[in-house]
Amino acid sequence: MNPQALLTDLTARLREASDLARASAVLQWDQSTGMPPGGAAARARQLALLGRMAHERAADAAIGRLLDRLQPYADALPLGHDHAALVRTARRDFERERRVPPDYSARLAEHASATYAAWMEARPRNDFGSLRPRLETTLDLSREYAGFFPGHAHLADPLIDAADEGMSAARLQPVFASLRQGLAPLLARIAGAPQVDDAPLRRHFPAAQQSRFSRAVIESIGYDFQRGRLDPTAHPFMTRFAHGDVRITTRTNEHFLGEQLFSTLHEAGHALYEQGTRAEDDGTPLGGGASAGVHESQSRLWENIVGRSAEFWRHWYPALQAEFPAQLGGVELPAFYAAVNRVHPSLIRTDADEVTYNLHVMIRFDLEMDLLDGRLAVADLPAAWHDRYQADLGVSAPDDRDGVLQDVHWFAGLIGGAFQDYTLGNIMGAQFYAAALRADPEIPAQVSRGNCAPLRAWLTANVYQHGRRLPPDDLLESVTGGPLDARPLLERLTAKSSEIYDL
Amino acid sequence: MNPQALLTDLTARLREASDLARASAVLQWDQSTGMPPGGAAARARQLALLGRMAHERAADAAIGRLLDRLQPYADALPLGHDHAALVRTARRDFERERRVPPDYSARLAEHASATYAAWMEARPRNDFGSLRPRLETTLDLSREYAGFFPGHAHLADPLIDAADEGMSAARLQPVFASLRQGLAPLLARIAGAPQVDDAPLRRHFPAAQQSRFSRAVIESIGYDFQRGRLDPTAHPFMTRFAHGDVRITTRTNEHFLGEQLFSTLHEAGHALYEQGTRAEDDGTPLGGGASAGVHESQSRLWENIVGRSAEFWRHWYPALQAEFPAQLGGVELPAFYAAVNRVHPSLIRTDADEVTYNLHVMIRFDLEMDLLDGRLAVADLPAAWHDRYQADLGVSAPDDRDGVLQDVHWFAGLIGGAFQDYTLGNIMGAQFYAAALRADPEIPAQVSRGNCAPLRAWLTANVYQHGRRLPPDDLLESVTGGPLDARPLLERLTAKSSEIYDL
Repeated sequence: MNPQALLTDLTARLREASDLARASAVLQWDQSTGMPPGGAAARARQLALLGRMAHERAADAAIGRLLDRLQPYADALPLGHDHAALVRTARRDFERERRVPPDYSARLAEHASATYAAWMEARPRNDFGSLRPRLETTLDLSREYAGFFPGHAHLADPLIDAADEGMSAARLQPVFASLRQGLAPLLARIAGAPQVDDAPLRRHFPAAQQSRFSRAVIESIGYDFQRGRLDPTAHPFMTRFAHGDVRITTRTNEHFLGEQLFSTLHEAGHALYEQGTRAEDDGTPLGGGASAGVHESQSRLWENIVGRSAEFWRHWYPALQAEFPAQLGGVELPAFYAAVNRVHPSLIRTDADEVTYNLHVMIRFDLEMDLLDGRLAVADLPAAWHDRYQADLGVSAPDDRDGVLQDVHWFAGLIGGAFQDYTLGNIMGAQFYAAALRADPEIPAQVSRGNCAPLRAWLTANVYQHGRRLPPDDLLESVTGGPLDARPLLERLTAKSSEIYDL
Repeated sequence: MNPQALLTDLTARLREASDLARASAVLQWDQSTGMPPGGAAARARQLALLGRMAHERAADAAIGRLLDRLQPYADALPLGHDHAALVRTARRDFERERRVPPDYSARLAEHASATYAAWMEARPRNDFGSLRPRLETTLDLSREYAGFFPGHAHLADPLIDAADEGMSAARLQPVFASLRQGLAPLLARIAGAPQVDDAPLRRHFPAAQQSRFSRAVIESIGYDFQRGRLDPTAHPFMTRFAHGDVRITTRTNEHFLGEQLFSTLHEAGHALYEQGTRAEDDGTPLGGGASAGVHESQSRLWENIVGRSAEFWRHWYPALQAEFPAQLGGVELPAFYAAVNRVHPSLIRTDADEVTYNLHVMIRFDLEMDLLDGRLAVADLPAAWHDRYQADLGVSAPDDRDGVLQDVHWFAGLIGGAFQDYTLGNIMGAQFYAAALRADPEIPAQVSRGNCAPLRAWLTANVYQHGRRLPPDDLLESVTGGPLDARPLLERLTAKSSEIYDL
């Protein structure tokens, strides 16, 4: 058989597995946006069935045979050729599906679901103790997972690589260390300056008006409502059912303006990436983001680098004031700009500002390493959490509710690889944006005129349209000219904080 | 293996096939309520895949072997035993899945989808001619379908039986004839009386207020929003994802009050049936309605027998007036009651009143028989349609748009078996309601106090909770004490029309 016939067969099989996974995504989206309570039990069963069937198709030995026959052809192609990229990504996905036994996946799913339910009950009661045995099982399952990938340098590496291809504990630690070394003195200088007032954001902002403004903003940055929709949910997310159907969700706090707007911009950033992939890649491994970290770089870029910039608000603030004249009519632009960029060490990661956010993430990353290495026992986790918050952020939670119990991640999945992509995203987002400015210095001026098209066009040409063609490291290198580097992020945060806090 | 083990195995297999079909239903619901236009192509592919997989599971030979081994056990059980009913319904479904070849289903699906698209374009252009060759293929496919069920008396019988188990052309024709013989003179007498004014329904009624009222009404009759939801759509429908998730959709005309309210009541009637089945039957063939006709009997019962009754409006009209004081404040209850029961021969089935509705259906049923029998050529269908409307209803459409092209059914499925369930529903709905009144004569008095619980309790005990345990004929006989009979419907329509038109 010639390569073209093999590729056609391979693509058809991959697309079927993808279609089953996308059907699951529709059921999950429905579950998170509008499913009545009575639907939960049957939905769990239906999702388990579809998940099993998607795995069976994705791990079908026939795919392995097709890949083996295509490998010599792919090896002879020039680097970056579409067929070589398809074979490379399909093989990576296939190997991962094959290495993790279905029996393990079933045990993990059951454990994760039971632990999630227990966490939902235990967190309001501030009851870490009842979760401890479950978390120890989670740790065992995390180590068992690593065992399916022999040859790893660190137990966390297979989990990190699952989300962020090519990344490892050994590669992350020095980059994170350099980021922390830059953030600590910056935070200390901010703490010494007069604090900014965010009271303008904490008035009453009716949900319907917030939604109207958020929709206008994301439509203006390029989110295509003909190929997506925006719905309310409890925990915002982006999901892709197809190249032509990339949905986002958001949540609203009528007493804090930052919640809906920045959450919507964040998810719209993820969606611009997916909407910017190529239609012909739909249903193949190439049709999607390069990694969790690269995906997060785009949500963070639009949420923070664009959405909290002076030039963005130069254009949008008059429209926001017109929407909320009573609440914001008397607030000048500089005061509003300072309010959305207020730096304030706090307890909750998801509420954190741009400067302290990465400190929250790195605490979790380090604790994951300590747990996996056996340097830290689960029983000692709450105390270790408390100590690290005191040391890195100077705050301590009065209880575990807003301490070690605050994030769902460890209570609905594995330990290790659960958090690094957030900070990877912040780092890479700053690198990509710096490269965009080098290529087109007019971008900020255009943003200040409400025109985000030049920035989106550059991102589409350099990042989005490639989908998963390049591994994350190669993509970063080819677009920014260098490897992972925390300096652009530190420079950006230092410059903005210096302006706002007059450092 | 003992029967219990075989039944457990059987139920697990049936539930998997059902879960795949229910997953399809979620995707279809989403497509009809909120999917962005860009999602259409991938969604069609995903639905085709799920449909194929559901068929593979439902037609799995292992199910046939389990049924064969269970048959002697089932035969020895008393009539009406749950296990006997499960084996009976599972065998009926299995046989139908096996008899229709997947290759035929694929051809039919492709033809139906292409014809539907062509109809969407041709109808506004009043272009029956371009659809004629397609409709001839539809007729060939309908005859081919009949061929999979050897031994039928009429080509339409396998199609009729697919929707309405046990029903046939020979059984329907005399019942329909007796109905037509009763309706014709009634319609003539109404035509001779002064016409009722429905202007009160044709004012401006804002959608949000209509929705608030409709939701209050269906909640009051017993629709459980904890196990369902109501959404807007183009063509209203009810769909069941699980016993705990039975959804309905509706549409709104701000210039005609009847549209949303009665459409919502209609779909809520379907939903009360599904919500009233037993939780433990979920995912098995017993968890659903007895037939299309019996299902329609419940939508019609709540829409018409309850929803257009004097006692219903005695309770609800003050609330409706309070919702729309400007529009209805000056309209007295008798005038409003007459308006929602106005009889007026018209061109469009879906807009028809209770008296003429069945004449629309029977025209279509007779034309289906003539087409399948070869007495009528597709080319002559528009003229035959025109003649029958003139003869039965005294109206003629100025073109085919509102004539033979008005219903989607023949342009998105087969010819034969597409319409009879609407009139079967009207007939059986009246029979069930008469039986309910014999059992509990207080029902109308309770409805006039806004209490539909006694009626719903009787229907749940006698119809809903049995699901598909009994074949439709047995259910009707056991509940009403007699066979299919148009007289209760005729008596009800005659009594109500006599009151309103002072005949």
